[in-house]
Amino acid sequence: MKLASLKTGRDGRLIVVSPDGTRFAEARAAATLQAALDDWRRAEPALRDEAARLAEEGGQPLDPSRLASPLPRAYEWVDGSAYVNHILLVRKARGAEPPPGLYEDPLVYQGGSGVLLGPTEDLVLPDEAWGMDFESEVCVVLDDVPQGTTASQAAEHVKLLMLANDVTYRNLVPAELAKSFGFFQSKPATAFSPFAVTPDDLGEAWHGGRLHLRLRTSLNGKLVGDPEAGPEMQFSFPDLIRHIAKTRAFTAGTILGSGTVSNADRARGVSCLAEKRTLETLDNGQPVTPFLKTGDRVQIEMLTSEGKSIFGRIDQRVRHREAA
Amino acid sequence: MKLASLKTGRDGRLIVVSPDGTRFAEARAAATLQAALDDWRRAEPALRDEAARLAEEGGQPLDPSRLASPLPRAYEWVDGSAYVNHILLVRKARGAEPPPGLYEDPLVYQGGSGVLLGPTEDLVLPDEAWGMDFESEVCVVLDDVPQGTTASQAAEHVKLLMLANDVTYRNLVPAELAKSFGFFQSKPATAFSPFAVTPDDLGEAWHGGRLHLRLRTSLNGKLVGDPEAGPEMQFSFPDLIRHIAKTRAFTAGTILGSGTVSNADRARGVSCLAEKRTLETLDNGQPVTPFLKTGDRVQIEMLTSEGKSIFGRIDQRVRHREAA
Repeated sequence: MKLASLKTGRDGRLIVVSPDGTRFAEARAAATLQAALDDWRRAEPALRDEAARLAEEGGQPLDPSRLASPLPRAYEWVDGSAYVNHILLVRKARGAEPPPGLYEDPLVYQGGSGVLLGPTEDLVLPDEAWGMDFESEVCVVLDDVPQGTTASQAAEHVKLLMLANDVTYRNLVPAELAKSFGFFQSKPATAFSPFAVTPDDLGEAWHGGRLHLRLRTSLNGKLVGDPEAGPEMQFSFPDLIRHIAKTRAFTAGTILGSGTVSNADRARGVSCLAEKRTLETLDNGQPVTPFLKTGDRVQIEMLTSEGKSIFGRIDQRVRHREAA
Repeated sequence: MKLASLKTGRDGRLIVVSPDGTRFAEARAAATLQAALDDWRRAEPALRDEAARLAEEGGQPLDPSRLASPLPRAYEWVDGSAYVNHILLVRKARGAEPPPGLYEDPLVYQGGSGVLLGPTEDLVLPDEAWGMDFESEVCVVLDDVPQGTTASQAAEHVKLLMLANDVTYRNLVPAELAKSFGFFQSKPATAFSPFAVTPDDLGEAWHGGRLHLRLRTSLNGKLVGDPEAGPEMQFSFPDLIRHIAKTRAFTAGTILGSGTVSNADRARGVSCLAEKRTLETLDNGQPVTPFLKTGDRVQIEMLTSEGKSIFGRIDQRVRHREAA
């Protein structure tokens, strides 16, 4: 089942979407996705009935530009960094050591969740010197997770999957991390894919707590990366859930990210510019690719083995603030 | 005007509270505090009318144990660390250097906001080895804050004030900070005071973007600190708002904390055990005071110059998980 939110009000208007992503109907079981997640046991079967009815009745044509983030604001946005290749390259880029326990202890940070971007909303860039970068990720939406949840209990808490563009101001990262309180100013609002999708929609591609498909990222119409999101995810989503729930509980609607998808095989390209710049530096002594500039266009998508878009396409343009 | 939330549902039930904190009426203008904040321009005058009516009609007696956090869950909980004395002592405790730009560049971290504790909810401590500590703070609740807000624009975004107990697992901090992604596992759920109070209720004590009153913390019935929250707050709340809004916007209902209130004058005591342990180490080579243990009781309160409790009392007991 595919769900999405029309841009209206602070929390959007929940819709059920046809499997091909082209048609929709406003949900009756809940007004917003957060409301559905707050009462998922009741809402999920009702929404599935509505999706079945949509298949019969046809619904209305869906214009992607009308979509907000499936959760236009969320109670938490926790982002992991589960691809070791990404960690090693990005730390190399800023001359930092790999973190202790790289292969045993997941890295996660608490992101801002009160203002999230829809899939086609502009990336507003007040200052190009901040070094805006995209980061293409897979993420899951959780129901209520108790403190102390184990990895074996954790899988059942994954209710939906989405894609994310976890935007970063690379040039603000070092000063923030030097203060040791996290990324704060270096992370503007994150953008999410048009559709939030139930795990059963992914078939065999969703197994072992990982999504075994390629995540495609294009910059200005040119593919820059299509890494496999499954095998090199060092910590599965259940591993990450166990990790974050060690000391506290999470409310329904919490979004948990994989971190930037990255493969050791260079032929798979990159899901962020920082990796590309590091590889250029390793090869030629300096980076060639600039960070994002006004007018750039970033597209992020994941296709089934039959070439169908699962989550719809994140498709954002970079805009200078004054150009509003 | 004092507002609070009864424990019911995920987001509580908004009530207006009498100035002395003893009586209440369920709010008609909004069902929850978040709903009121989402539409504050309309809701605030309506709630003030209801507060006036409560004063005439008397309402019902208020049992503090019925109260949730004013916001039982929030879209963001951003916590500053604006008292330089606290930063210096806590860093000394873990053998870390003071951060660069200590006096010019505010420290803030993104906290978990999906599950917040009410003022009398137990502090559940699964493992005493984690080193549970209280941290007594002042915080503000914001309306919508645009990206790029200046300090002079920021003051008007402060709609309510509260107190917080920003609980920390001290012994989990070093390993988390070594990974440079922030405090994640070392911060369990934060607790908030019974009442959220509009700035006008604070009279002259609220000026310069700081709250000029003493914050009283007791452990097991004994006062451990009553530092002045105003003069040594290096960055005012508007300073902190400007800082956090540099690269992104915030939704109404965002909570922003001052950090642990701390004075250089030792006679004012402490608002957390980490400071006390550092002072003991400086004086005698080792800490004497243990971190919180099962059965301990923490109380946090702020009184007017006439001795009246403004925000009600945070009053929490530490309980081992199995004792539920």
